[in-house]
Amino acid sequence: MVDADDAGNGGVVVAGSGATGDADTETDDPLKAEIMRATYRALIEQGYSDLTIQGIADEFPKSKSLLYYHYDGKDDLIASFLGFATDRFRREIEVEIDDPEAQLRALVDQLVPESLDEGEYRVQVALLELRSETPHNERFRQQYAVVDDALKSDIADVLRRGIESGAFATDVNPDTEAEVLVSLLTGVRTLRLSTYERFPVAETRAALDGYLDRLLADSEA
Amino acid sequence: MVDADDAGNGGVVVAGSGATGDADTETDDPLKAEIMRATYRALIEQGYSDLTIQGIADEFPKSKSLLYYHYDGKDDLIASFLGFATDRFRREIEVEIDDPEAQLRALVDQLVPESLDEGEYRVQVALLELRSETPHNERFRQQYAVVDDALKSDIADVLRRGIESGAFATDVNPDTEAEVLVSLLTGVRTLRLSTYERFPVAETRAALDGYLDRLLADSEA
Repeated sequence: MVDADDAGNGGVVVAGSGATGDADTETDDPLKAEIMRATYRALIEQGYSDLTIQGIADEFPKSKSLLYYHYDGKDDLIASFLGFATDRFRREIEVEIDDPEAQLRALVDQLVPESLDEGEYRVQVALLELRSETPHNERFRQQYAVVDDALKSDIADVLRRGIESGAFATDVNPDTEAEVLVSLLTGVRTLRLSTYERFPVAETRAALDGYLDRLLADSEA
Repeated sequence: MVDADDAGNGGVVVAGSGATGDADTETDDPLKAEIMRATYRALIEQGYSDLTIQGIADEFPKSKSLLYYHYDGKDDLIASFLGFATDRFRREIEVEIDDPEAQLRALVDQLVPESLDEGEYRVQVALLELRSETPHNERFRQQYAVVDDALKSDIADVLRRGIESGAFATDVNPDTEAEVLVSLLTGVRTLRLSTYERFPVAETRAALDGYLDRLLADSEA
Protein backbone atom coordinates (compact mmCIF):
# COMPACT_ATOMS: atom_id res chain seq x y z
CA MET A 1 0.00 0.00 0.00
CA VAL A 2 1.18 3.46 -0.82
CA ASP A 3 -0.19 6.24 1.30
CA ALA A 4 -0.77 9.39 -0.72
CA ASP A 5 0.31 11.50 2.22
CA ASP A 6 3.70 9.81 2.20
CA ALA A 7 4.42 10.76 -1.35
CA GLY A 8 5.91 14.12 -0.46
CA ASN A 9 5.53 17.31 -2.38
CA GLY A 10 7.40 16.40 -5.53
CA GLY A 11 4.86 17.89 -7.94
CA VAL A 12 2.91 15.06 -9.40
CA VAL A 13 2.45 15.81 -13.02
CA VAL A 14 5.77 17.02 -14.01
CA ALA A 15 7.54 15.65 -10.98
CA GLY A 16 7.35 12.71 -8.67
CA SER A 17 4.21 13.03 -6.64
CA GLY A 18 1.85 15.72 -5.42
CA ALA A 19 -1.88 16.14 -5.03
CA THR A 20 -1.35 14.97 -1.52
CA GLY A 21 -3.16 16.26 1.48
CA ASP A 22 -1.44 19.61 1.87
CA ALA A 23 -3.46 22.33 3.49
CA ASP A 24 -3.23 24.81 0.64
CA THR A 25 -5.03 22.50 -1.74
CA GLU A 26 -7.93 22.01 0.56
CA THR A 27 -8.61 25.66 1.06
CA ASP A 28 -9.32 26.08 -2.66
CA ASP A 29 -12.09 23.53 -2.97
CA PRO A 30 -12.16 20.81 -0.33
CA LEU A 31 -14.39 18.43 -2.28
CA LYS A 32 -12.30 18.67 -5.42
CA ALA A 33 -9.12 18.18 -3.41
CA GLU A 34 -10.63 15.08 -1.84
CA ILE A 35 -11.63 13.67 -5.22
CA MET A 36 -8.20 14.42 -6.62
CA ARG A 37 -6.54 12.65 -3.71
CA ALA A 38 -8.72 9.60 -4.33
CA THR A 39 -7.76 9.68 -8.02
CA TYR A 40 -4.11 9.99 -7.10
CA ARG A 41 -4.25 7.08 -4.70
CA ALA A 42 -6.14 4.89 -7.15
CA LEU A 43 -3.70 5.74 -9.93
CA ILE A 44 -0.63 4.76 -7.93
CA GLU A 45 -2.31 1.66 -6.56
CA GLN A 46 -3.64 0.36 -9.86
CA GLY A 47 -1.89 2.16 -12.71
CA TYR A 48 -3.82 3.63 -15.58
CA SER A 49 -4.73 0.59 -17.69
CA ASP A 50 -6.32 -1.32 -14.85
CA LEU A 51 -7.99 1.69 -13.28
CA THR A 52 -11.78 1.89 -13.09
CA ILE A 53 -14.00 4.59 -11.69
CA GLN A 54 -14.92 2.05 -9.02
CA GLY A 55 -11.22 1.93 -8.10
CA ILE A 56 -11.29 5.69 -7.60
CA ALA A 57 -14.57 5.48 -5.68
CA ASP A 58 -13.00 2.91 -3.34
CA GLU A 59 -10.41 5.52 -2.35
CA PHE A 60 -13.04 8.23 -1.92
CA PRO A 61 -14.56 8.48 1.53
CA LYS A 62 -17.80 10.12 0.36
CA SER A 63 -20.62 9.00 -1.91
CA LYS A 64 -19.63 7.68 -5.31
CA SER A 65 -22.49 9.67 -6.83
CA LEU A 66 -20.46 12.83 -6.17
CA LEU A 67 -17.81 11.54 -8.56
CA TYR A 68 -20.39 10.96 -11.27
CA TYR A 69 -22.03 14.29 -10.61
CA HIS A 70 -18.83 16.30 -11.00
CA TYR A 71 -16.90 14.21 -13.52
CA ASP A 72 -17.66 12.54 -16.79
CA GLY A 73 -15.99 9.20 -16.10
CA LYS A 74 -12.50 7.91 -15.40
CA ASP A 75 -10.64 9.84 -18.11
CA ASP A 76 -12.22 13.12 -17.07
CA LEU A 77 -11.13 12.49 -13.48
CA ILE A 78 -7.60 11.68 -14.58
CA ALA A 79 -7.33 14.68 -16.91
CA SER A 80 -8.60 16.94 -14.12
CA PHE A 81 -6.07 15.38 -11.82
CA LEU A 82 -3.27 16.21 -14.27
CA GLY A 83 -4.37 19.84 -14.32
CA PHE A 84 -4.88 20.01 -10.57
CA ALA A 85 -1.48 18.56 -9.78
CA THR A 86 0.24 20.79 -12.33
CA ASP A 87 -1.27 23.86 -10.70
CA ARG A 88 -0.04 22.76 -7.31
CA PHE A 89 3.43 22.03 -8.61
CA ARG A 90 3.66 25.45 -10.27
CA ARG A 91 2.47 27.21 -7.13
CA GLU A 92 5.04 25.48 -4.97
CA ILE A 93 7.94 26.39 -7.22
CA GLU A 94 6.73 29.94 -7.62
CA VAL A 95 5.90 30.74 -4.04
CA GLU A 96 8.77 29.13 -2.25
CA ILE A 97 11.75 30.40 -4.22
CA ASP A 98 12.63 33.85 -5.43
CA ASP A 99 16.15 33.68 -6.89
CA PRO A 100 15.91 32.69 -10.59
CA GLU A 101 18.86 30.31 -10.66
CA ALA A 102 17.75 28.60 -7.43
CA GLN A 103 14.22 28.40 -8.81
CA LEU A 104 15.35 26.70 -12.01
CA ARG A 105 17.55 24.26 -10.13
CA ALA A 106 14.71 23.49 -7.71
CA LEU A 107 12.40 22.81 -10.62
CA VAL A 108 14.88 20.39 -12.17
CA ASP A 109 15.43 18.82 -8.79
CA GLN A 110 11.72 18.27 -8.28
CA LEU A 111 11.30 16.78 -11.73
CA VAL A 112 14.37 14.58 -11.53
CA PRO A 113 14.88 13.88 -7.84
CA GLU A 114 17.95 11.97 -6.75
CA SER A 115 15.84 9.01 -5.79
CA LEU A 116 12.19 8.03 -6.02
CA ASP A 117 10.35 6.24 -3.29
CA GLU A 118 7.84 3.56 -4.23
CA GLY A 119 4.92 6.00 -4.37
CA GLU A 120 6.75 8.57 -6.48
CA TYR A 121 7.94 5.85 -8.81
CA ARG A 122 4.42 4.53 -9.27
CA VAL A 123 3.09 7.99 -10.04
CA GLN A 124 5.76 8.54 -12.65
CA VAL A 125 4.96 5.19 -14.23
CA ALA A 126 1.26 6.08 -14.32
CA LEU A 127 2.10 9.45 -15.87
CA LEU A 128 4.17 7.78 -18.57
CA GLU A 129 1.23 5.49 -19.28
CA LEU A 130 -1.03 8.52 -19.59
CA ARG A 131 1.51 10.16 -21.87
CA SER A 132 1.55 7.11 -24.13
CA GLU A 133 -2.25 7.30 -24.29
CA THR A 134 -2.15 10.84 -25.68
CA PRO A 135 -2.05 9.82 -29.36
CA HIS A 136 -5.33 7.94 -28.89
CA ASN A 137 -6.96 10.13 -26.28
CA GLU A 138 -7.94 13.68 -27.21
CA ARG A 139 -8.72 14.65 -23.61
CA PHE A 140 -5.31 13.62 -22.31
CA ARG A 141 -3.61 15.20 -25.31
CA GLN A 142 -5.26 18.52 -24.58
CA GLN A 143 -4.41 18.28 -20.90
CA TYR A 144 -0.78 17.38 -21.56
CA ALA A 145 -0.54 20.29 -24.01
CA VAL A 146 -1.61 22.55 -21.13
CA VAL A 147 0.86 20.90 -18.75
CA ASP A 148 3.76 21.10 -21.21
CA ASP A 149 3.00 24.69 -22.17
CA ALA A 150 2.69 25.72 -18.53
CA LEU A 151 6.07 24.24 -17.70
CA LYS A 152 7.63 25.81 -20.79
CA SER A 153 6.19 29.20 -19.97
CA ASP A 154 7.31 28.98 -16.33
CA ILE A 155 10.86 28.09 -17.36
CA ALA A 156 10.94 30.88 -19.94
CA ASP A 157 9.79 33.35 -17.27
CA VAL A 158 12.45 32.22 -14.82
CA LEU A 159 15.07 32.57 -17.54
CA ARG A 160 13.85 36.04 -18.46
CA ARG A 161 13.98 37.17 -14.85
CA GLY A 162 17.42 35.61 -14.49
CA ILE A 163 18.74 37.37 -17.57
CA GLU A 164 17.45 40.67 -16.20
CA SER A 165 18.98 40.03 -12.79
CA GLY A 166 22.31 39.14 -14.38
CA ALA A 167 22.24 35.51 -13.25
CA PHE A 168 21.84 34.04 -16.76
CA ALA A 169 23.84 34.99 -19.82
CA THR A 170 22.33 37.66 -22.05
CA ASP A 171 22.63 35.44 -25.15
CA VAL A 172 20.27 32.83 -23.68
CA ASN A 173 17.01 32.80 -25.65
CA PRO A 174 14.38 32.13 -22.96
CA ASP A 175 11.78 30.55 -25.24
CA THR A 176 14.18 28.34 -27.15
CA GLU A 177 15.94 27.29 -23.99
CA ALA A 178 12.62 26.54 -22.28
CA GLU A 179 11.66 24.37 -25.25
CA VAL A 180 14.91 22.45 -24.95
CA LEU A 181 14.66 22.11 -21.17
CA VAL A 182 11.09 20.78 -21.21
CA SER A 183 12.11 18.19 -23.80
CA LEU A 184 15.23 17.33 -21.87
CA LEU A 185 13.36 16.88 -18.60
CA THR A 186 10.64 14.82 -20.26
CA GLY A 187 13.29 12.62 -21.82
CA VAL A 188 15.23 12.14 -18.61
CA ARG A 189 12.06 11.20 -16.75
CA THR A 190 11.06 8.75 -19.47
CA LEU A 191 14.49 7.12 -19.68
CA ARG A 192 14.70 6.85 -15.93
CA LEU A 193 11.61 4.67 -15.81
CA SER A 194 12.99 2.41 -18.54
CA THR A 195 15.99 1.64 -16.38
CA TYR A 196 14.59 1.54 -12.88
CA GLU A 197 17.30 -0.73 -11.52
CA ARG A 198 19.94 1.90 -12.22
CA PHE A 199 18.73 4.36 -9.61
CA PRO A 200 19.87 6.82 -8.41
CA VAL A 201 20.50 8.85 -11.51
CA ALA A 202 23.65 10.67 -10.39
CA GLU A 203 25.18 10.76 -13.85
CA THR A 204 22.08 12.22 -15.46
CA ARG A 205 21.69 14.79 -12.73
CA ALA A 206 25.31 15.83 -13.18
CA ALA A 207 24.65 16.24 -16.91
CA LEU A 208 21.60 18.36 -16.13
CA ASP A 209 23.60 20.47 -13.68
CA GLY A 210 26.25 20.99 -16.33
CA TYR A 211 23.54 21.99 -18.73
CA LEU A 212 22.22 24.62 -16.32
CA ASP A 213 25.75 25.86 -15.59
CA ARG A 214 26.12 26.76 -19.24
CA LEU A 215 23.16 29.13 -19.00
CA LEU A 216 24.83 31.19 -16.29
CA ALA A 217 26.26 34.61 -16.99
CA ASP A 218 29.67 33.58 -15.69
CA SER A 219 29.72 30.21 -17.45
CA GLU A 220 32.38 30.98 -20.06
CA ALA A 221 35.33 28.72 -19.44
CA MET B 1 -3.58 0.44 -44.45
CA VAL B 2 0.06 1.28 -44.04
CA ASP B 3 2.50 -0.49 -46.28
CA ALA B 4 5.75 -1.21 -44.48
CA ASP B 5 7.70 -0.55 -47.64
CA ASP B 6 6.34 2.97 -47.74
CA ALA B 7 7.63 3.83 -44.33
CA GLY B 8 11.03 4.92 -45.55
CA ASN B 9 14.34 4.31 -43.86
CA GLY B 10 13.95 6.57 -40.87
CA GLY B 11 15.37 4.11 -38.34
CA VAL B 12 12.53 2.51 -36.54
CA VAL B 13 13.49 2.29 -32.94
CA VAL B 14 15.03 5.58 -32.31
CA ALA B 15 13.61 7.25 -35.38
CA GLY B 16 10.51 7.19 -37.47
CA SER B 17 10.36 3.90 -39.25
CA GLY B 18 12.69 1.20 -40.50
CA ALA B 19 12.80 -2.59 -40.61
CA THR B 20 11.41 -2.23 -44.07
CA GLY B 21 12.35 -4.33 -47.04
CA ASP B 22 15.78 -2.94 -47.75
CA ALA B 23 18.20 -5.29 -49.42
CA ASP B 24 20.91 -5.06 -46.78
CA THR B 25 18.64 -6.45 -44.10
CA GLU B 26 17.76 -9.49 -46.11
CA THR B 27 21.32 -10.52 -46.80
CA ASP B 28 21.97 -10.97 -43.07
CA ASP B 29 19.27 -13.50 -42.33
CA PRO B 30 16.35 -13.57 -44.76
CA LEU B 31 13.96 -15.44 -42.48
CA LYS B 32 14.62 -13.15 -39.55
CA ALA B 33 14.21 -10.09 -41.75
CA GLU B 34 10.89 -11.44 -42.97
CA ILE B 35 9.67 -12.09 -39.44
CA MET B 36 10.80 -8.63 -38.36
CA ARG B 37 8.93 -7.05 -41.27
CA ALA B 38 5.79 -8.93 -40.27
CA THR B 39 6.23 -7.71 -36.68
CA TYR B 40 6.74 -4.17 -37.90
CA ARG B 41 3.64 -4.24 -40.07
CA ALA B 42 1.51 -5.77 -37.32
CA LEU B 43 2.77 -3.21 -34.82
CA ILE B 44 1.88 -0.24 -36.98
CA GLU B 45 -1.45 -1.75 -37.98
CA GLN B 46 -2.57 -2.71 -34.49
CA GLY B 47 -0.43 -0.90 -31.95
CA TYR B 48 1.11 -2.75 -29.02
CA SER B 49 -1.83 -3.24 -26.64
CA ASP B 50 -4.06 -4.88 -29.22
CA LEU B 51 -1.32 -6.89 -30.87
CA THR B 52 -1.43 -10.70 -30.76
CA ILE B 53 0.98 -13.24 -32.17
CA GLN B 54 -1.82 -14.12 -34.59
CA GLY B 55 -1.74 -10.52 -35.78
CA ILE B 56 1.95 -10.90 -36.54
CA ALA B 57 1.35 -14.29 -38.18
CA ASP B 58 -1.25 -12.66 -40.43
CA GLU B 59 1.46 -10.40 -41.81
CA PHE B 60 3.91 -13.27 -42.21
CA PRO B 61 3.78 -15.06 -45.56
CA LYS B 62 5.24 -18.33 -44.26
CA SER B 63 4.07 -20.87 -41.72
CA LYS B 64 3.09 -19.53 -38.31
CA SER B 65 4.97 -22.42 -36.72
CA LEU B 66 8.22 -20.73 -37.74
CA LEU B 67 7.34 -17.81 -35.48
CA TYR B 68 6.78 -20.13 -32.55
CA TYR B 69 9.90 -22.10 -33.33
CA HIS B 70 12.17 -19.05 -33.32
CA TYR B 71 10.45 -16.79 -30.81
CA ASP B 72 8.98 -17.17 -27.39
CA GLY B 73 5.73 -15.27 -27.96
CA LYS B 74 4.68 -11.75 -28.85
CA ASP B 75 6.93 -9.86 -26.44
CA ASP B 76 9.99 -11.80 -27.58
CA LEU B 77 9.18 -10.90 -31.18
CA ILE B 78 8.74 -7.26 -30.31
CA ALA B 79 11.91 -7.06 -28.22
CA SER B 80 13.83 -8.71 -31.07
CA PHE B 81 12.31 -6.23 -33.44
CA LEU B 82 13.54 -3.33 -31.28
CA GLY B 83 17.07 -4.72 -31.41
CA PHE B 84 16.90 -5.50 -35.10
CA ALA B 85 15.65 -2.05 -36.03
CA THR B 86 18.22 -0.37 -33.80
CA ASP B 87 21.02 -2.25 -35.54
CA ARG B 88 19.76 -1.18 -38.92
CA PHE B 89 19.42 2.44 -37.85
CA ARG B 90 22.96 2.51 -36.46
CA ARG B 91 24.39 0.94 -39.60
CA GLU B 92 22.69 3.49 -41.83
CA ILE B 93 23.99 6.46 -39.88
CA GLU B 94 27.46 4.98 -39.62
CA VAL B 95 27.92 3.84 -43.19
CA GLU B 96 26.40 6.70 -45.08
CA ILE B 97 28.03 9.69 -43.44
CA ASP B 98 31.63 10.36 -42.55
CA ASP B 99 31.84 13.97 -41.35
CA PRO B 100 31.12 14.08 -37.58
CA GLU B 101 29.00 17.22 -37.57
CA ALA B 102 26.96 16.02 -40.57
CA GLN B 103 26.59 12.63 -38.91
CA LEU B 104 25.25 14.13 -35.70
CA ARG B 105 22.85 16.38 -37.58
CA ALA B 106 21.66 13.46 -39.70
CA LEU B 107 21.04 11.43 -36.58
CA VAL B 108 18.95 14.20 -35.07
CA ASP B 109 17.17 14.64 -38.35
CA GLN B 110 16.30 10.95 -38.54
CA LEU B 111 15.06 10.91 -34.98
CA VAL B 112 13.09 14.13 -35.24
CA PRO B 113 12.14 14.44 -38.92
CA GLU B 114 10.41 17.58 -40.09
CA SER B 115 7.22 15.65 -40.68
CA LEU B 116 6.00 12.10 -40.09
CA ASP B 117 3.85 10.23 -42.55
CA GLU B 118 1.07 8.03 -41.21
CA GLY B 119 3.26 4.92 -41.04
CA GLU B 120 6.13 6.68 -39.27
CA TYR B 121 3.70 8.27 -36.85
CA ARG B 122 2.16 4.91 -36.02
CA VAL B 123 5.54 3.36 -35.40
CA GLN B 124 6.50 6.16 -33.05
CA VAL B 125 3.21 5.75 -31.19
CA ALA B 126 3.82 2.01 -30.87
CA LEU B 127 7.36 2.67 -29.62
CA LEU B 128 6.07 5.06 -26.98
CA GLU B 129 3.62 2.39 -25.89
CA LEU B 130 6.49 -0.09 -25.61
CA ARG B 131 8.49 2.46 -23.67
CA SER B 132 5.63 2.92 -21.21
CA GLU B 133 5.54 -0.88 -20.78
CA THR B 134 9.16 -0.98 -19.64
CA PRO B 135 8.45 -0.51 -15.92
CA HIS B 136 6.29 -3.65 -15.99
CA ASN B 137 8.14 -5.65 -18.62
CA GLU B 138 11.65 -6.86 -17.87
CA ARG B 139 12.28 -7.98 -21.48
CA PHE B 140 11.43 -4.58 -22.94
CA ARG B 141 13.35 -2.81 -20.21
CA GLN B 142 16.47 -4.79 -21.04
CA GLN B 143 16.02 -4.17 -24.74
CA TYR B 144 15.46 -0.45 -24.30
CA ALA B 145 18.56 -0.27 -22.09
CA VAL B 146 20.50 -1.73 -25.03
CA VAL B 147 18.86 0.70 -27.47
CA ASP B 148 19.49 3.74 -25.27
CA ASP B 149 23.06 2.74 -24.50
CA ALA B 150 23.78 2.10 -28.18
CA LEU B 151 22.50 5.52 -29.15
CA LYS B 152 24.42 7.16 -26.32
CA SER B 153 27.63 5.38 -27.25
CA ASP B 154 27.21 6.27 -30.95
CA ILE B 155 26.67 9.93 -30.14
CA ALA B 156 29.66 9.97 -27.76
CA ASP B 157 31.82 8.43 -30.52
CA VAL B 158 30.72 10.99 -33.07
CA LEU B 159 31.47 13.77 -30.59
CA ARG B 160 34.90 12.32 -29.83
CA ARG B 161 35.75 12.11 -33.52
CA GLY B 162 34.46 15.63 -34.04
CA ILE B 163 36.53 17.01 -31.19
CA GLU B 164 39.62 15.35 -32.69
CA SER B 165 38.82 16.69 -36.15
CA GLY B 166 38.32 20.18 -34.76
CA ALA B 167 34.62 20.34 -35.62
CA PHE B 168 33.41 20.30 -32.01
CA ALA B 169 34.73 22.44 -29.17
CA THR B 170 37.44 20.86 -27.05
CA ASP B 171 35.53 21.58 -23.83
CA VAL B 172 32.63 19.34 -24.91
CA ASN B 173 32.48 16.25 -22.71
CA PRO B 174 31.41 13.49 -25.13
CA ASP B 175 29.81 11.20 -22.55
CA THR B 176 27.95 13.91 -20.67
CA GLU B 177 26.79 15.52 -23.89
CA ALA B 178 25.66 12.16 -25.27
CA GLU B 179 23.65 11.61 -22.10
CA VAL B 180 21.99 14.99 -22.52
CA LEU B 181 21.33 14.47 -26.23
CA VAL B 182 19.73 11.04 -25.82
CA SER B 183 17.44 12.46 -23.14
CA LEU B 184 16.67 15.50 -25.24
CA LEU B 185 15.83 13.43 -28.32
CA THR B 186 13.70 11.02 -26.30
CA GLY B 187 11.83 13.96 -24.81
CA VAL B 188 11.27 15.69 -28.12
CA ARG B 189 9.94 12.48 -29.66
CA THR B 190 7.65 11.89 -26.69
CA LEU B 191 6.31 15.45 -26.64
CA ARG B 192 5.76 15.41 -30.38
CA LEU B 193 3.36 12.51 -30.08
CA SER B 194 1.44 14.27 -27.31
CA THR B 195 0.73 17.17 -29.62
CA TYR B 196 0.23 15.53 -32.99
CA GLU B 197 -1.93 18.30 -34.38
CA ARG B 198 0.93 20.77 -34.10
CA PHE B 199 3.10 19.17 -36.75
CA PRO B 200 5.55 20.00 -38.20
CA VAL B 201 7.88 20.69 -35.34
CA ALA B 202 9.82 23.59 -36.83
CA GLU B 203 10.32 25.38 -33.51
CA THR B 204 11.64 22.29 -31.78
CA ARG B 205 13.96 21.48 -34.64
CA ALA B 206 15.31 25.02 -34.56
CA ALA B 207 15.95 24.61 -30.83
CA LEU B 208 17.75 21.33 -31.51
CA ASP B 209 19.82 22.96 -34.25
CA GLY B 210 20.75 25.76 -31.87
CA TYR B 211 21.72 23.16 -29.33
CA LEU B 212 24.04 21.43 -31.81
CA ASP B 213 25.49 24.79 -32.89
CA ARG B 214 26.70 25.34 -29.36
CA LEU B 215 28.82 22.20 -29.52
CA LEU B 216 30.78 23.49 -32.50
CA ALA B 217 34.34 24.67 -32.17
CA ASP B 218 33.48 28.06 -33.63
CA SER B 219 30.28 28.52 -31.65
CA GLU B 220 31.49 31.21 -29.23
CA ALA B 221 29.41 34.30 -29.82
